[in-house]
Amino acid sequence: MKKILVIGAGRSSGSLITYLLKNATSNNWFITVTDMNLAFATEKVKGYSNCEAKTFDVTNDTQRKAIIEAHDAVVSMLPATMHGSVAKDCVSFGKHLFTASYVSAEMKELDKEAKQKGVLLMNEIGLDPGIDHASAMKIIHDLQAKGANIISFRSYCGGLVAPESNDNPWGYKFSWNPRNVVVAGQSAAQYISEGKLKFIPPSRIFTQIDTINVERYGAFDAYANRDSISYQEPYGLKNIKTLLRGTLRTPGYCEAWNVFVRLGLTDDTYKIHEADKLTYTQLLDSVLPPSKGTIKDRLKEFMGKEFNSSIEEKLNYLELFSERKIKLKEASPAQLLQDLLEEKWKLKQGDKDMIVMQHLFDYELNGKTHHLTSSLVVLGDDENHTAMAKTVGLPLAITLKNFLEGKFKLSGVQIPIVKDVYSPLLQELESLGIKFDEKEN
Amino acid sequence: MKKILVIGAGRSSGSLITYLLKNATSNNWFITVTDMNLAFATEKVKGYSNCEAKTFDVTNDTQRKAIIEAHDAVVSMLPATMHGSVAKDCVSFGKHLFTASYVSAEMKELDKEAKQKGVLLMNEIGLDPGIDHASAMKIIHDLQAKGANIISFRSYCGGLVAPESNDNPWGYKFSWNPRNVVVAGQSAAQYISEGKLKFIPPSRIFTQIDTINVERYGAFDAYANRDSISYQEPYGLKNIKTLLRGTLRTPGYCEAWNVFVRLGLTDDTYKIHEADKLTYTQLLDSVLPPSKGTIKDRLKEFMGKEFNSSIEEKLNYLELFSERKIKLKEASPAQLLQDLLEEKWKLKQGDKDMIVMQHLFDYELNGKTHHLTSSLVVLGDDENHTAMAKTVGLPLAITLKNFLEGKFKLSGVQIPIVKDVYSPLLQELESLGIKFDEKEN
Repeated sequence: MKKILVIGAGRSSGSLITYLLKNATSNNWFITVTDMNLAFATEKVKGYSNCEAKTFDVTNDTQRKAIIEAHDAVVSMLPATMHGSVAKDCVSFGKHLFTASYVSAEMKELDKEAKQKGVLLMNEIGLDPGIDHASAMKIIHDLQAKGANIISFRSYCGGLVAPESNDNPWGYKFSWNPRNVVVAGQSAAQYISEGKLKFIPPSRIFTQIDTINVERYGAFDAYANRDSISYQEPYGLKNIKTLLRGTLRTPGYCEAWNVFVRLGLTDDTYKIHEADKLTYTQLLDSVLPPSKGTIKDRLKEFMGKEFNSSIEEKLNYLELFSERKIKLKEASPAQLLQDLLEEKWKLKQGDKDMIVMQHLFDYELNGKTHHLTSSLVVLGDDENHTAMAKTVGLPLAITLKNFLEGKFKLSGVQIPIVKDVYSPLLQELESLGIKFDEKEN
Repeated sequence: MKKILVIGAGRSSGSLITYLLKNATSNNWFITVTDMNLAFATEKVKGYSNCEAKTFDVTNDTQRKAIIEAHDAVVSMLPATMHGSVAKDCVSFGKHLFTASYVSAEMKELDKEAKQKGVLLMNEIGLDPGIDHASAMKIIHDLQAKGANIISFRSYCGGLVAPESNDNPWGYKFSWNPRNVVVAGQSAAQYISEGKLKFIPPSRIFTQIDTINVERYGAFDAYANRDSISYQEPYGLKNIKTLLRGTLRTPGYCEAWNVFVRLGLTDDTYKIHEADKLTYTQLLDSVLPPSKGTIKDRLKEFMGKEFNSSIEEKLNYLELFSERKIKLKEASPAQLLQDLLEEKWKLKQGDKDMIVMQHLFDYELNGKTHHLTSSLVVLGDDENHTAMAKTVGLPLAITLKNFLEGKFKLSGVQIPIVKDVYSPLLQELESLGIKFDEKEN
């Protein structure tokens, strides 16, 4: 019997845990579901056999080491910054690890020892990063096998709200960690365009956007992600002329978010003391340059051509001009903004979220230029069973299963860019309704 | 005999070391001058008695501890981030420490133990911070003693080039660490204006500027420094309505520097690989949004109303449009900019630098509002004996002397805001020609 440890049993772990529990008996697995909060874990295992619920505190060295040592494989849904100690224990006890997080410098350092011990540290195996790597690599390998020369590859993904549940002017609700949304775009974007290096500073990321079209779902804003250039080598795209990874939002979101960027309200590097003595309107006052008039008039003057009635509607919706009080006492501007947005952008009962991903390839084959578009749309079932939880959790669970079944043999620090990993993963995702729609044009 | 250890014997330590050496015999001091580079130290002690030159490597624990233990007081000119181990050793061996750096969190933590052991850790005792604290506190204490209510306090300082040596369109040359100039303004500015909290994000710091006038030297640009609000308590200005600390530059510098900020060329958070394959013009191309035309035309279009012929002249001077090759191979945009500026903004033989400081007070006394302006201008002798080295080094040396002479008794982490410290310091600085000019109006 293989023993699997799941760390983290919050709402976003739902699909992952359900998949593992449903497959436990037939695969002869025993699943230990853990969380800081035992109630989350207990609720998840209710009604299943071959499993138990336990508390897990990543900072408790003795407990963490003991529980990792007692299992064969570990799936960690901890935040990326907390994977370090878990990964080190996995390597030292010879246990395999699966995470949906980007490979950190700390993780990279474990590569050599993990390889020596035959331990797999599989990362970036969620949605983005995860399904994006798998689905892009399938196309890249297929095209290269045909002898095609890939000229351009752009890849976009967004965790959004389904059109039927979209009832606010931002066209956005949180289906994942709100903090990541608020501090998005705080590093320069780095990509390649028409053979040239391109850099966008954080102050311009939400203005220098593209428009992406997805059949039946229409247009989306796309802003450039951090470092696209670093994927050129692992993707095997040495001579590519354009390489860009971006994030999708509902049209109009980016120009409105740009107001917060220009005001400095996404700054997370300093705290405002006694912020709870202010209203959000006074907060706007504190970040606007000195001028006369109402706060709204001053904001319009400040933004100039970058303001319009659609932006105004979005800001009105957030009660930014209505003397709404700030609740947090000592917080960064980003934290104050997040606190407000968590209320305004909450998935309500019955709300469905939506995942949209699109890859756009230009390639040359037999002297002709071709365009290939591959698109994925996944809708959530409701506010608890989200498309986000499915598309992050299922790749983790399926790849763990495939590994335990011997469908691929790898060790060291890996991401899902190898055929033996992505092929069975994409196949099973398709059977579960997570299917890309490919168009040549 | 008191033994004094000086760490750091580079050009900026010149005035500090000369002062100490000149006073060594009469005060019965022995001075050990140290540097990573022994030649710097040897050159500084040449011709003096009661002194020796040694190498010092802050990362060599054994050597560092031994040399600190063998002295009574330490003056450290190391960069702020390297003071930690020196300060810890000073406290553990019971030795007093003097630095011109801002009090770090690491330094603050040593306060209690230092107080218990009667050890003084005097920080922020250079120019800015240093002379600014001392001179401002003298005025604040004098006004408060008269019963005045201080309504507004703004304080500005800049390390510039003397008008007679100003031969480039920027009106700027480096008299201190170039890196600090290039990465200036990368944190939000926080201050108080007319009773309200004010914040300026990094993207707007060089556009939201003031103009300051100094008699006989004319107007200067002033941009807001990091966190002015944190000085409200130590300065004893609880009910003040306006509190701002800023940095001075020659008029026109800020609007031109804003071009680099908007382009993202002051970003120090990522590296460009194989940067030496690019020219500076290609670097501009990589950070400009896509558009048609020459790089200069595209830059003009991008900057819009924020561009003018005076900015163009400054950028031409830096050879940004002339296919000049980049020298560094792997560097951040900020490092590439610094490498260029170090050549263009170098103090030439005979060049004089200039320190300008100005405090502006508004206060109420006997029902009337008064304005007080206190200004300091210090000129360097030449490119080696700079005003910067004088105004940073002399406060350190004088305060160390005053402490050893028993003119003040303090322990723990301190900054020069106490009368016993600033009074004799300002008096001696005056005798050395570093004298504020005070005007009531």
